[in-house]
Amino acid sequence: MNETIELLMNHRSIRKFKQENLTDEQIKTIIQAGQSASTSSYYQAYTVIGITDEKLKQQLREVSGQEYVEHNGHLFVFCADLNRMYQSQDQTTQEKMKDNIENTEFFIMATIDATLAAQNAAVASESLGLGICYLGSLRNDINRVNELLNLPQYVIPLFGMAVGVPDEEPDVKPRFDFNAIYHENGYQDHTKYVEQFNETTEHYYEDRSFNTKIDNWSKQVERKLSKPMRMDVTDFVKQKGLNNR
Amino acid sequence: MNETIELLMNHRSIRKFKQENLTDEQIKTIIQAGQSASTSSYYQAYTVIGITDEKLKQQLREVSGQEYVEHNGHLFVFCADLNRMYQSQDQTTQEKMKDNIENTEFFIMATIDATLAAQNAAVASESLGLGICYLGSLRNDINRVNELLNLPQYVIPLFGMAVGVPDEEPDVKPRFDFNAIYHENGYQDHTKYVEQFNETTEHYYEDRSFNTKIDNWSKQVERKLSKPMRMDVTDFVKQKGLNNR
Repeated sequence: MNETIELLMNHRSIRKFKQENLTDEQIKTIIQAGQSASTSSYYQAYTVIGITDEKLKQQLREVSGQEYVEHNGHLFVFCADLNRMYQSQDQTTQEKMKDNIENTEFFIMATIDATLAAQNAAVASESLGLGICYLGSLRNDINRVNELLNLPQYVIPLFGMAVGVPDEEPDVKPRFDFNAIYHENGYQDHTKYVEQFNETTEHYYEDRSFNTKIDNWSKQVERKLSKPMRMDVTDFVKQKGLNNR
Repeated sequence: MNETIELLMNHRSIRKFKQENLTDEQIKTIIQAGQSASTSSYYQAYTVIGITDEKLKQQLREVSGQEYVEHNGHLFVFCADLNRMYQSQDQTTQEKMKDNIENTEFFIMATIDATLAAQNAAVASESLGLGICYLGSLRNDINRVNELLNLPQYVIPLFGMAVGVPDEEPDVKPRFDFNAIYHENGYQDHTKYVEQFNETTEHYYEDRSFNTKIDNWSKQVERKLSKPMRMDVTDFVKQKGLNNR
């Protein structure tokens, strides 16, 4: 196992950071490492908004409901961005492009592009001794985030990422068995792996070093998904012009 | 710059591989590094199909039209998977979950989950001295890929990844300026950065070590997006039960 793989395997989300801002150099390195990731057809269909304004950070924290959205070394918001491509063309070409830009294929593509960059940024951050936490919670009120960040047509805020010097050392959380995630030559039934993973997570929650509880993966899925959540995301995305053809 | 960041910055897609299969140990390490990435609410909403069957590889190559989909050290297909979560519950809960599983929010979430894992897998591969190429081209005929891999309801093949020992050494391709991708506290106009990047890419295509040409980024975008492409993806995703509420 080399140094990089060890780093990847050692990932855990950090939700408590020291009061120490990232330097401009760190921010640049992290984003440029992100930009080095693969990108569909060279489009680079994403934009990252860094939040330095204290009031704005507080407002985004209100959307997420998470303390660490406000208190961290730096806050990034990763956006799928098809606007840059659209704006790069004259009006005649723009009209021709709409069939693509507004369909599901390009929405998938831009979401993938933004996420590839984000994960490289996460890995780069961790290699610098920093901790990270992804913030899907910004989609709790995606319209509000859109408004706060002044995002134009064809740009969607997908998730945030809090980065900073860790002020906690949580355990690495177990994952599904390799054989549950990886199948050969076709899809296979997952039943036995789900049962196995429920046992794994029961032990994990019972034994971990903080906040022990009686729980397992299936129970979590049941609790989370039994109530409709973020039902406004569908219309929001369509209103921004994406995923609507 | 540490070793990991150097590795990330040095990424280039590899499209020609030596005839040398990945070992089972390499495959396991790559996938487990992928699994270590962050995952929304611990869902791990993805499955990876590894292709070892020669005929199947050839059929997937026909979908993509790319030689390196058939000839590589290993071929992975990354799928957004909400089926595992759905199947983990009894019928009463399943009914309650449908409002979530079938909406755009969960489609975004599963796409992000699969992509986070994929990028970790890419980084792990490269740290082992292997090269990788993402294959969005499998969406050229997403229905066919679905059929070939026997994917159930709520599972979408997002992209492939060819991995192997590099048999070429392409240049690192330039990216947009840091200031084009990274904005502070809100979205900014990209016009000048697009002009700048068009110049950068003109020089790059003129000067690179193979296949020189006269081209730039905006021209590529125009050529690619002026004709409708992969228009069947929208209906496919809906038919699989996702992104339809």
